[in-house]
Amino acid sequence: MPCNTNALTLAAFFQSNPAKVMTENLRAHINKFTKISEQQLSEILTYFKVIEVSKKENILNEGKICRSNYFVNKGCLRLFFINEKGVEQTIQFALENWWLADYTSFSSQTASDFYIQAVEKSQILTLDFDVQEVLLQNFPQMERYFRLVHQRAHAASQFRIKTLYALSREELYNLFNKRYPEFVQRIPQYLLASFLGFTPEYLSEIRNKKIS
Amino acid sequence: MPCNTNALTLAAFFQSNPAKVMTENLRAHINKFTKISEQQLSEILTYFKVIEVSKKENILNEGKICRSNYFVNKGCLRLFFINEKGVEQTIQFALENWWLADYTSFSSQTASDFYIQAVEKSQILTLDFDVQEVLLQNFPQMERYFRLVHQRAHAASQFRIKTLYALSREELYNLFNKRYPEFVQRIPQYLLASFLGFTPEYLSEIRNKKIS
Repeated sequence: MPCNTNALTLAAFFQSNPAKVMTENLRAHINKFTKISEQQLSEILTYFKVIEVSKKENILNEGKICRSNYFVNKGCLRLFFINEKGVEQTIQFALENWWLADYTSFSSQTASDFYIQAVEKSQILTLDFDVQEVLLQNFPQMERYFRLVHQRAHAASQFRIKTLYALSREELYNLFNKRYPEFVQRIPQYLLASFLGFTPEYLSEIRNKKIS
Repeated sequence: MPCNTNALTLAAFFQSNPAKVMTENLRAHINKFTKISEQQLSEILTYFKVIEVSKKENILNEGKICRSNYFVNKGCLRLFFINEKGVEQTIQFALENWWLADYTSFSSQTASDFYIQAVEKSQILTLDFDVQEVLLQNFPQMERYFRLVHQRAHAASQFRIKTLYALSREELYNLFNKRYPEFVQRIPQYLLASFLGFTPEYLSEIRNKKIS
Protein backbone atom coordinates (compact mmCIF):
# COMPACT_ATOMS: atom_id res chain seq x y z
CA MET A 1 0.00 0.00 0.00
CA PRO A 2 1.36 3.45 -0.79
CA CYS A 3 2.43 5.69 2.05
CA ASN A 4 1.97 2.90 4.52
CA THR A 5 4.59 4.36 6.77
CA ASN A 6 2.62 7.59 7.05
CA ALA A 7 -0.78 5.96 7.38
CA LEU A 8 -2.51 6.19 10.72
CA THR A 9 -6.05 5.52 11.73
CA LEU A 10 -7.87 8.76 12.43
CA ALA A 11 -8.17 7.77 16.08
CA ALA A 12 -4.40 7.36 16.40
CA PHE A 13 -3.81 10.51 14.40
CA PHE A 14 -6.12 12.43 16.70
CA GLN A 15 -4.04 11.36 19.68
CA SER A 16 -0.70 12.19 18.12
CA ASN A 17 -1.64 15.28 16.11
CA PRO A 18 -4.84 16.72 17.56
CA ALA A 19 -4.35 20.12 16.01
CA LYS A 20 -3.60 18.88 12.53
CA VAL A 21 -6.62 16.75 11.90
CA MET A 22 -9.34 18.39 9.94
CA THR A 23 -12.21 16.04 9.42
CA GLU A 24 -14.64 18.91 9.19
CA ASN A 25 -14.47 18.95 5.39
CA LEU A 26 -15.50 15.33 5.02
CA ARG A 27 -18.09 15.62 7.78
CA ALA A 28 -19.66 18.62 6.06
CA HIS A 29 -19.44 16.92 2.66
CA ILE A 30 -21.27 13.81 3.90
CA ASN A 31 -23.88 16.00 5.63
CA LYS A 32 -24.44 17.88 2.39
CA PHE A 33 -25.60 14.72 0.64
CA THR A 34 -27.20 12.57 3.30
CA LYS A 35 -28.56 12.90 6.80
CA ILE A 36 -26.52 10.99 9.36
CA SER A 37 -26.42 11.67 13.10
CA GLU A 38 -23.33 13.31 14.59
CA GLN A 39 -22.59 10.20 16.60
CA GLN A 40 -22.79 7.93 13.56
CA LEU A 41 -20.63 10.37 11.61
CA SER A 42 -17.97 10.18 14.30
CA GLU A 43 -18.04 6.39 14.04
CA ILE A 44 -17.91 6.54 10.23
CA LEU A 45 -14.81 8.73 10.34
CA THR A 46 -12.91 6.03 12.27
CA TYR A 47 -12.92 3.92 9.07
CA PHE A 48 -10.66 6.44 7.37
CA LYS A 49 -6.92 6.80 7.57
CA VAL A 50 -5.15 10.06 7.12
CA ILE A 51 -1.98 10.40 5.08
CA GLU A 52 0.26 13.39 4.61
CA VAL A 53 1.63 13.41 1.08
CA SER A 54 4.56 15.50 -0.13
CA LYS A 55 4.47 17.57 -3.31
CA LYS A 56 5.02 15.29 -6.34
CA GLU A 57 4.76 12.12 -4.21
CA ASN A 58 2.89 9.29 -5.94
CA ILE A 59 0.20 7.44 -4.01
CA LEU A 60 -0.61 5.19 -6.97
CA ASN A 61 1.74 3.86 -9.64
CA GLU A 62 0.94 2.25 -13.00
CA GLY A 63 0.83 -1.53 -12.70
CA LYS A 64 -0.20 -1.40 -9.02
CA ILE A 65 -3.68 -1.95 -7.63
CA CYS A 66 -5.55 1.18 -6.58
CA ARG A 67 -6.39 -0.06 -3.09
CA SER A 68 -7.96 3.12 -1.72
CA ASN A 69 -10.50 5.77 -2.46
CA TYR A 70 -8.97 9.19 -1.72
CA PHE A 71 -10.73 12.23 -0.27
CA VAL A 72 -8.74 15.44 -0.51
CA ASN A 73 -8.93 17.17 2.84
CA LYS A 74 -6.25 19.70 2.00
CA GLY A 75 -4.13 20.11 -1.12
CA CYS A 76 -4.55 18.68 -4.58
CA LEU A 77 -4.16 15.34 -6.35
CA ARG A 78 -3.96 14.54 -10.04
CA LEU A 79 -4.62 11.36 -12.04
CA PHE A 80 -2.33 10.90 -15.03
CA PHE A 81 -0.92 8.31 -17.39
CA ILE A 82 2.33 8.21 -19.34
CA ASN A 83 1.73 8.17 -23.08
CA GLU A 84 3.70 6.35 -25.78
CA LYS A 85 6.10 9.26 -26.10
CA GLY A 86 6.87 9.04 -22.40
CA VAL A 87 4.95 12.24 -21.64
CA GLU A 88 2.69 12.56 -18.57
CA GLN A 89 -0.91 13.26 -19.52
CA THR A 90 -3.13 14.55 -16.69
CA ILE A 91 -6.77 13.62 -17.05
CA GLN A 92 -8.25 14.60 -13.67
CA PHE A 93 -7.52 16.92 -10.75
CA ALA A 94 -9.01 16.70 -7.28
CA LEU A 95 -8.96 19.74 -5.01
CA GLU A 96 -10.41 19.91 -1.49
CA ASN A 97 -13.66 17.94 -1.05
CA TRP A 98 -13.16 15.82 -4.14
CA TRP A 99 -12.76 12.08 -4.25
CA LEU A 100 -10.22 10.49 -6.54
CA ALA A 101 -9.25 6.94 -7.49
CA ASP A 102 -8.70 4.91 -10.62
CA TYR A 103 -12.21 3.47 -10.38
CA THR A 104 -11.56 0.62 -12.80
CA SER A 105 -8.63 -0.60 -10.74
CA PHE A 106 -10.38 0.21 -7.44
CA SER A 107 -13.65 -1.56 -8.36
CA SER A 108 -12.03 -4.74 -9.63
CA GLN A 109 -8.84 -4.60 -7.51
CA THR A 110 -6.72 -5.11 -10.63
CA ALA A 111 -3.58 -3.33 -11.86
CA SER A 112 -3.97 0.33 -12.78
CA ASP A 113 -3.02 2.14 -16.00
CA PHE A 114 -2.69 5.38 -14.05
CA TYR A 115 -0.64 7.28 -11.50
CA ILE A 116 -2.04 9.46 -8.72
CA GLN A 117 0.28 12.20 -7.50
CA ALA A 118 0.08 15.11 -5.08
CA VAL A 119 0.32 18.40 -6.96
CA GLU A 120 1.13 20.18 -3.70
CA LYS A 121 1.71 19.05 -0.10
CA SER A 122 -1.60 17.39 0.73
CA GLN A 123 -3.59 15.84 3.53
CA ILE A 124 -5.65 12.93 2.25
CA LEU A 125 -8.29 10.80 3.92
CA THR A 126 -8.09 7.28 2.55
CA LEU A 127 -10.68 4.54 2.53
CA ASP A 128 -9.32 1.12 1.60
CA PHE A 129 -11.45 -1.02 -0.72
CA ASP A 130 -12.23 -3.73 1.84
CA VAL A 131 -12.73 -1.19 4.63
CA GLN A 132 -15.19 0.69 2.40
CA GLU A 133 -17.15 -2.54 1.95
CA VAL A 134 -17.35 -3.02 5.75
CA LEU A 135 -18.29 0.64 6.23
CA LEU A 136 -21.11 0.29 3.68
CA GLN A 137 -22.38 -2.86 5.37
CA ASN A 138 -22.40 -1.19 8.77
CA PHE A 139 -23.67 2.18 7.56
CA PRO A 140 -25.80 1.56 4.45
CA GLN A 141 -26.75 5.26 4.48
CA MET A 142 -23.27 5.84 3.12
CA GLU A 143 -24.34 4.10 -0.12
CA ARG A 144 -26.46 7.19 -0.82
CA TYR A 145 -23.50 9.47 -0.17
CA PHE A 146 -21.24 7.59 -2.56
CA ARG A 147 -24.06 7.18 -5.11
CA LEU A 148 -24.43 10.96 -5.22
CA VAL A 149 -20.65 11.51 -5.34
CA HIS A 150 -20.37 9.18 -8.35
CA GLN A 151 -23.52 10.58 -9.99
CA ARG A 152 -21.97 14.06 -9.85
CA ALA A 153 -18.70 12.73 -11.22
CA HIS A 154 -20.61 10.99 -14.01
CA ALA A 155 -22.36 14.31 -14.81
CA ALA A 156 -19.02 16.16 -14.73
CA SER A 157 -17.47 13.67 -17.15
CA GLN A 158 -20.38 14.07 -19.61
CA PHE A 159 -19.74 17.83 -19.53
CA ARG A 160 -15.98 17.25 -19.85
CA ILE A 161 -16.36 15.00 -22.91
CA LYS A 162 -18.70 17.56 -24.48
CA THR A 163 -16.10 20.30 -24.04
CA LEU A 164 -13.38 18.07 -25.55
CA TYR A 165 -15.50 17.74 -28.70
CA ALA A 166 -17.08 21.19 -28.83
CA LEU A 167 -14.34 23.62 -27.99
CA SER A 168 -11.04 24.67 -29.50
CA ARG A 169 -8.05 24.56 -27.17
CA GLU A 170 -8.20 28.30 -26.62
CA GLU A 171 -11.92 28.19 -25.86
CA LEU A 172 -11.27 25.34 -23.40
CA TYR A 173 -8.72 27.46 -21.55
CA ASN A 174 -11.07 30.45 -21.50
CA LEU A 175 -13.88 28.26 -20.14
CA PHE A 176 -11.70 26.96 -17.33
CA ASN A 177 -10.44 30.43 -16.57
CA LYS A 178 -13.99 31.73 -16.30
CA ARG A 179 -15.52 28.81 -14.38
CA TYR A 180 -12.61 27.92 -12.14
CA PRO A 181 -10.37 31.02 -11.79
CA GLU A 182 -8.89 29.85 -8.46
CA PHE A 183 -8.09 26.45 -9.95
CA VAL A 184 -6.32 28.05 -12.92
CA GLN A 185 -4.30 30.30 -10.60
CA ARG A 186 -3.38 27.45 -8.26
CA ILE A 187 -2.33 24.68 -10.66
CA PRO A 188 1.20 24.83 -12.13
CA GLN A 189 0.96 25.97 -15.72
CA TYR A 190 2.67 22.93 -17.27
CA LEU A 191 0.09 20.66 -15.58
CA LEU A 192 -2.80 22.85 -16.67
CA ALA A 193 -1.47 22.75 -20.24
CA SER A 194 -1.19 18.94 -20.09
CA PHE A 195 -4.73 18.67 -18.72
CA LEU A 196 -6.11 20.88 -21.48
CA GLY A 197 -4.19 18.91 -24.07
CA PHE A 198 -1.64 21.45 -25.24
CA THR A 199 1.97 22.49 -24.71
CA PRO A 200 3.07 24.94 -21.99
CA GLU A 201 4.31 27.21 -24.82
CA TYR A 202 0.84 27.35 -26.38
CA LEU A 203 -0.73 28.13 -22.99
CA SER A 204 1.80 30.92 -22.48
CA GLU A 205 0.86 32.31 -25.92
CA ILE A 206 -2.85 32.39 -25.04
CA ARG A 207 -2.16 34.01 -21.68
CA ASN A 208 0.00 36.70 -23.26
CA LYS A 209 -2.69 37.38 -25.85
CA LYS A 210 -5.22 37.94 -23.06
CA ILE A 211 -2.93 40.31 -21.18
CA SER A 212 -1.82 42.41 -24.17
CA MET B 1 -42.53 14.41 -20.14
CA PRO B 2 -41.41 12.86 -23.41
CA CYS B 3 -43.41 10.00 -24.84
CA ASN B 4 -46.14 10.55 -22.31
CA THR B 5 -48.71 9.10 -24.63
CA ASN B 6 -46.79 5.85 -24.80
CA ALA B 7 -45.89 5.72 -21.12
CA LEU B 8 -47.56 3.08 -19.00
CA THR B 9 -46.81 1.77 -15.58
CA LEU B 10 -45.29 -1.68 -15.78
CA ALA B 11 -48.37 -3.11 -14.07
CA ALA B 12 -50.67 -1.66 -16.74
CA PHE B 13 -48.28 -2.66 -19.47
CA PHE B 14 -48.20 -6.22 -18.16
CA GLN B 15 -51.98 -6.37 -18.46
CA SER B 16 -52.13 -4.94 -21.94
CA ASN B 17 -48.97 -6.46 -23.47
CA PRO B 18 -48.02 -9.45 -21.37
CA ALA B 19 -45.82 -10.96 -24.05
CA LYS B 20 -43.92 -7.80 -24.84
CA VAL B 21 -42.68 -6.92 -21.40
CA MET B 22 -39.18 -7.98 -20.65
CA THR B 23 -38.18 -6.96 -17.19
CA GLU B 24 -35.76 -9.85 -16.93
CA ASN B 25 -32.84 -7.69 -18.07
CA LEU B 26 -33.31 -5.12 -15.32
CA ARG B 27 -34.09 -7.80 -12.74
CA ALA B 28 -30.85 -9.64 -13.61
CA HIS B 29 -28.91 -6.38 -13.69
CA ILE B 30 -30.05 -5.39 -10.20
CA ASN B 31 -29.32 -8.91 -8.93
CA LYS B 32 -25.82 -8.70 -10.37
CA PHE B 33 -24.98 -5.76 -8.11
CA THR B 34 -27.03 -6.21 -4.98
CA LYS B 35 -28.96 -8.90 -3.21
CA ILE B 36 -32.69 -8.20 -3.10
CA SER B 37 -35.45 -10.77 -2.61
CA GLU B 38 -37.60 -11.75 -5.59
CA GLN B 39 -40.67 -10.28 -3.92
CA GLN B 40 -38.98 -6.94 -3.27
CA LEU B 41 -37.66 -6.91 -6.83
CA SER B 42 -41.18 -7.34 -8.15
CA GLU B 43 -42.28 -4.38 -6.03
CA ILE B 44 -39.30 -2.31 -7.18
CA LEU B 45 -40.17 -2.91 -10.83
CA THR B 46 -43.59 -1.30 -10.32
CA TYR B 47 -41.83 2.08 -9.94
CA PHE B 48 -40.74 1.93 -13.57
CA LYS B 49 -42.64 2.87 -16.68
CA VAL B 50 -42.04 1.30 -20.02
CA ILE B 51 -41.91 3.30 -23.23
CA GLU B 52 -41.62 2.12 -26.80
CA VAL B 53 -39.50 4.55 -28.77
CA SER B 54 -39.30 4.70 -32.56
CA LYS B 55 -36.03 4.89 -34.44
CA LYS B 56 -34.70 8.49 -34.36
CA GLU B 57 -37.35 9.57 -31.85
CA ASN B 58 -36.05 12.02 -29.22
CA ILE B 59 -36.88 11.38 -25.59
CA LEU B 60 -34.93 14.43 -24.42
CA ASN B 61 -34.46 17.74 -26.22
CA GLU B 62 -31.99 20.55 -25.55
CA GLY B 63 -33.51 23.19 -23.27
CA LYS B 64 -35.83 20.69 -21.60
CA ILE B 65 -35.37 19.08 -18.19
CA CYS B 66 -34.16 15.49 -18.19
CA ARG B 67 -36.92 14.17 -15.97
CA SER B 68 -36.10 10.47 -16.17
CA ASN B 69 -33.29 8.01 -15.82
CA TYR B 70 -33.44 5.56 -18.76
CA PHE B 71 -32.64 1.85 -18.70
CA VAL B 72 -32.32 0.25 -22.13
CA ASN B 73 -34.27 -2.98 -22.10
CA LYS B 74 -34.04 -3.44 -25.84
CA GLY B 75 -32.51 -1.28 -28.54
CA CYS B 76 -30.07 1.57 -28.29
CA LEU B 77 -30.04 5.21 -27.18
CA ARG B 78 -27.52 7.95 -27.80
CA LEU B 79 -26.73 11.22 -26.02
CA PHE B 80 -25.69 14.06 -28.31
CA PHE B 81 -25.46 17.82 -28.59
CA ILE B 82 -25.58 20.12 -31.59
CA ASN B 83 -22.34 22.04 -32.04
CA GLU B 84 -21.85 25.61 -33.27
CA LYS B 85 -21.78 24.44 -36.88
CA GLY B 86 -25.17 22.80 -36.43
CA VAL B 87 -23.66 19.30 -36.50
CA GLU B 88 -24.84 16.56 -34.13
CA GLN B 89 -22.03 15.28 -31.92
CA THR B 90 -22.69 11.95 -30.16
CA ILE B 91 -20.89 11.58 -26.86
CA GLN B 92 -22.47 8.43 -25.39
CA PHE B 93 -24.31 5.31 -26.53
CA ALA B 94 -26.40 3.01 -24.34
CA LEU B 95 -27.13 -0.53 -25.49
CA GLU B 96 -29.13 -3.13 -23.56
CA ASN B 97 -28.53 -3.05 -19.78
CA TRP B 98 -27.09 0.46 -19.77
CA TRP B 99 -28.52 3.46 -18.02
CA LEU B 100 -28.56 6.84 -19.72
CA ALA B 101 -29.55 10.36 -18.74
CA ASP B 102 -28.06 13.83 -18.82
CA TYR B 103 -27.00 13.55 -15.19
CA THR B 104 -26.42 17.27 -14.71
CA SER B 105 -29.96 18.05 -15.84
CA PHE B 106 -31.39 15.00 -14.07
CA SER B 107 -29.64 15.68 -10.73
CA SER B 108 -30.59 19.35 -10.55
CA GLN B 109 -33.80 19.17 -12.62
CA THR B 110 -32.59 22.05 -14.79
CA ALA B 111 -32.57 22.52 -18.58
CA SER B 112 -30.36 20.14 -20.54
CA ASP B 113 -27.66 20.93 -23.12
CA PHE B 114 -28.24 17.52 -24.70
CA TYR B 115 -30.59 15.38 -26.75
CA ILE B 116 -31.32 11.70 -26.14
CA GLN B 117 -32.48 9.78 -29.20
CA ALA B 118 -33.26 6.17 -30.06
CA VAL B 119 -30.74 4.83 -32.58
CA GLU B 120 -33.11 1.97 -33.39
CA LYS B 121 -36.63 1.01 -32.29
CA SER B 122 -36.20 0.61 -28.53
CA GLN B 123 -37.96 -0.48 -25.39
CA ILE B 124 -36.92 1.70 -22.47
CA LEU B 125 -37.68 1.43 -18.76
CA THR B 126 -37.93 4.92 -17.30
CA LEU B 127 -37.58 6.06 -13.73
CA ASP B 128 -38.73 9.63 -13.13
CA PHE B 129 -36.60 11.79 -10.83
CA ASP B 130 -39.17 12.12 -8.05
CA VAL B 131 -40.21 8.46 -8.37
CA GLN B 132 -36.57 7.43 -8.04
CA GLU B 133 -36.36 9.42 -4.80
CA VAL B 134 -39.40 7.59 -3.41
CA LEU B 135 -38.02 4.25 -4.60
CA LEU B 136 -34.72 4.94 -2.82
CA GLN B 137 -36.52 5.91 0.38
CA ASN B 138 -38.62 2.73 0.31
CA PHE B 139 -35.83 0.45 -0.88
CA PRO B 140 -32.53 1.90 0.36
CA GLN B 141 -30.75 -1.23 -0.94
CA MET B 142 -31.22 0.34 -4.38
CA GLU B 143 -28.75 3.08 -3.37
CA ARG B 144 -26.06 0.39 -3.59
CA TYR B 145 -27.24 -0.62 -7.05
CA PHE B 146 -27.16 2.93 -8.39
CA ARG B 147 -23.88 3.66 -6.58
CA LEU B 148 -22.27 0.75 -8.43
CA VAL B 149 -23.88 1.74 -11.74
CA HIS B 150 -22.46 5.27 -11.43
CA GLN B 151 -19.10 4.03 -10.14
CA ARG B 152 -18.77 1.88 -13.29
CA ALA B 153 -19.81 4.79 -15.48
CA HIS B 154 -17.25 6.98 -13.70
CA ALA B 155 -14.58 4.32 -14.38
CA ALA B 156 -15.66 4.07 -18.03
CA SER B 157 -15.41 7.82 -18.49
CA GLN B 158 -11.87 7.87 -17.04
CA PHE B 159 -10.95 5.24 -19.62
CA ARG B 160 -12.77 7.17 -22.36
CA ILE B 161 -10.99 10.44 -21.57
CA LYS B 162 -7.65 8.57 -21.55
CA THR B 163 -8.36 7.19 -25.03
CA LEU B 164 -9.31 10.66 -26.31
CA TYR B 165 -5.88 11.93 -25.25
CA ALA B 166 -3.78 8.86 -25.95
CA LEU B 167 -4.96 7.52 -29.27
CA SER B 168 -5.06 8.74 -32.84
CA ARG B 169 -8.44 8.58 -34.57
CA GLU B 170 -7.48 5.41 -36.39
CA GLU B 171 -6.25 3.77 -33.18
CA LEU B 172 -9.51 4.76 -31.49
CA TYR B 173 -11.51 3.03 -34.22
CA ASN B 174 -9.32 -0.07 -34.02
CA LEU B 175 -9.72 -0.19 -30.24
CA PHE B 176 -13.51 -0.02 -30.52
CA ASN B 177 -13.51 -2.61 -33.26
CA LYS B 178 -11.46 -4.96 -31.11
CA ARG B 179 -13.23 -4.40 -27.79
CA TYR B 180 -16.80 -3.97 -29.02
CA PRO B 181 -17.11 -5.70 -32.44
CA GLU B 182 -20.90 -6.15 -32.11
CA PHE B 183 -21.33 -2.50 -31.21
CA VAL B 184 -19.31 -1.40 -34.25
CA GLN B 185 -21.37 -3.67 -36.52
CA ARG B 186 -24.67 -2.53 -35.07
CA ILE B 187 -24.28 1.27 -34.92
CA PRO B 188 -24.86 3.24 -38.16
CA GLN B 189 -21.50 4.29 -39.53
CA TYR B 190 -22.21 8.04 -39.58
CA LEU B 191 -23.03 7.89 -35.86
CA LEU B 192 -19.95 5.84 -35.05
CA ALA B 193 -17.84 8.37 -36.96
CA SER B 194 -19.44 11.25 -35.02
CA PHE B 195 -18.84 9.43 -31.72
CA LEU B 196 -15.20 8.82 -32.57
CA GLY B 197 -14.79 12.43 -33.63
CA PHE B 198 -14.26 12.10 -37.37
CA THR B 199 -16.11 12.27 -40.67
CA PRO B 200 -17.97 9.31 -42.24
CA GLU B 201 -15.55 9.61 -45.19
CA TYR B 202 -12.55 9.16 -42.94
CA LEU B 203 -14.16 6.14 -41.27
CA SER B 204 -14.84 4.65 -44.69
CA GLU B 205 -11.17 5.20 -45.60
CA ILE B 206 -9.97 3.35 -42.48
CA ARG B 207 -12.39 0.49 -43.09
CA ASN B 208 -11.29 0.11 -46.69
CA LYS B 209 -7.66 0.12 -45.61
CA LYS B 210 -8.39 -2.75 -43.21
CA ILE B 211 -10.22 -4.79 -45.83
CA SER B 212 -7.71 -4.29 -48.64
